Amino acid sequence: MPEKPMVPRDPDWDAKVRASFKRQTFMDTIGARIAALSPGYCQVELAFRGDLCQQNGYLHGGLVTTIAANATGYAAFSLMPPNSSVLGVDYKINLLDPAAGERFIAIGRVLKPGRTLSVVECDIEAEEAGKRKLIAKMLTTMMCLEGVADEIRYKK
Amino acid sequence: MPEKPMVPRDPDWDAKVRASFKRQTFMDTIGARIAALSPGYCQVELAFRGDLCQQNGYLHGGLVTTIAANATGYAAFSLMPPNSSVLGVDYKINLLDPAAGERFIAIGRVLKPGRTLSVVECDIEAEEAGKRKLIAKMLTTMMCLEGVADEIRYKK
Amino acid sequence: MPEKPMVPRDPDWDAKVRASFKRQTFMDTIGARIAALSPGYCQVELAFRGDLCQQNGYLHGGLVTTIAANATGYAAFSLMPPNSSVLGVDYKINLLDPAAGERFIAIGRVLKPGRTLSVVECDIEAEEAGKRKLIAKMLTTMMCLEGVADEIRYKK
Amino acid sequence: MPEKPMVPRDPDWDAKVRASFKRQTFMDTIGARIAALSPGYCQVELAFRGDLCQQNGYLHGGLVTTIAANATGYAAFSLMPPNSSVLGVDYKINLLDPAAGERFIAIGRVLKPGRTLSVVECDIEAEEAGKRKLIAKMLTTMMCLEGVADEIRYKK
Repeated sequence: MPEKPMVPRDPDWDAKVRASFKRQTFMDTIGARIAALSPGYCQVELAFRGDLCQQNGYLHGGLVTTIAANATGYAAFSLMPPNSSVLGVDYKINLLDPAAGERFIAIGRVLKPGRTLSVVECDIEAEEAGKRKLIAKMLTTMMCLEGVADEIRYKK
Repeated sequence: MPEKPMVPRDPDWDAKVRASFKRQTFMDTIGARIAALSPGYCQVELAFRGDLCQQNGYLHGGLVTTIAANATGYAAFSLMPPNSSVLGVDYKINLLDPAAGERFIAIGRVLKPGRTLSVVECDIEAEEAGKRKLIAKMLTTMMCLEGVADEIRYKK
Repeated sequence: MPEKPMVPRDPDWDAKVRASFKRQTFMDTIGARIAALSPGYCQVELAFRGDLCQQNGYLHGGLVTTIAANATGYAAFSLMPPNSSVLGVDYKINLLDPAAGERFIAIGRVLKPGRTLSVVECDIEAEEAGKRKLIAKMLTTMMCLEGVADEIRYKK
Repeated sequence: MPEKPMVPRDPDWDAKVRASFKRQTFMDTIGARIAALSPGYCQVELAFRGDLCQQNGYLHGGLVTTIAANATGYAAFSLMPPNSSVLGVDYKINLLDPAAGERFIAIGRVLKPGRTLSVVECDIEAEEAGKRKLIAKMLTTMMCLEGVADEIRYKK
């Protein structure tokens, strides 16, 4: 099936996505960053660190999910209209192999953009000694909140 | 349907689960802890912190998934035999409400313990001003690796 | 957590749900029926039949999912306003045990009703010789299409 | 990422898969058939019929899941060793668009074959007037039961 090119509805999509990502304090805490971005597509990258591990020394599965949640969320957000927010509805992820590697790349692609809901898939790869391997696959539903600006709404 | 009490197959189940949790450096990084533990049941608790947020100021969805992954994983691990490891196969989570609150509690309960696979569900609640609210629900598959000791296997 | 009673927004909720179920020709084909119904809650029942099996003689997993999809969809639909339709967004199901039994009951309960999205869970039980057993668990997202009447929209 | 060709471990994989599919009485009831088969890959096809519909006249979502369950299950089974059975562990499916069309094709591809667990994805397409459209996407976990012959084990 030929894929249609995805057309952003906000001319400011690139800056908007990057500003939103930057507002996520948790990304700074773990050192994750946007590695690639185009309409309907987003890569998020995370380097291995000794303080991000599960019980066997691999990257924690919650972090594999975290970068996939951001790659899919921002892939969807890049197609949303001005003055809207993106909301994660559900994450469905299979962990295929232990998260071993120097860095991890979550590659989010919108399968179906919708006015309210978008369905997005994500490959999560681990890179070690220059080789990449698929270690997880995610399928997710993202929601567009129109008329709700993407800004800080909760302060503790 | 009456629930059968779950019987651990390892007399050392309590110490084993706590030792495994303690080996997770990521739990230390975010300040999560085991709040309750019994055979087939585990609660993991996380306090809100300003450096754990998503773009609107709420706790990051990846962390909601992280504590649910641990609550379900250790609920399952508590029933596994000696000299085995637990492996997350998949996470399926619905985010019901923004993760607003002072602390978050993931409550994992084994639905079906199996020799190889266990199915576990999890309620994730947020507590604010003494009130609790269900903010997410997870359903997950956990795998038992028999004969594979739960220890550090990967060192970077 | 105490559960709040769920309040239907359509006084005609009971008749509306039953009329919609009756319009599903596939329910007639397999002989499924609504076994219980209240606001935010729906049971769908299916008797075993030799022409509904998978390769080992058990009820087909697609049918376990089918009755769970209806139990959850109609649990959600019972809470939706007049002149609206219900749409299944995603199904996430774990099959815990082979579907062996004389009849199968899918028990759908709304976890969180929403204006647009509702999250619903479902226990699927098998009954054999008077005993019931949990054989599958589903978590699903349902969408309300307001202003779209629940009627035949597609004719082949 | 280059995909490795998948190597069957049973020389009789093609006949074995087809015999198993044929044993599924439910496939005969709805008129589904295997449309393509190779190691780690399976297409299942279903024609629209008036007795297979949901409440708005579209193909029932439970049947979209059913053909995807078979396409993924047999994609996985094609790679399993002799004298084994395949078991669906979980299905995670997003319904992207109403199932409108003359026929529906579920295209299952193994993402990761494993000794015990295999992860398989599935595109489900609808064909209408010669045009195909992606209407659903599934991600699933399949289990191999070694030493358990794939035959009728349950008779009612």
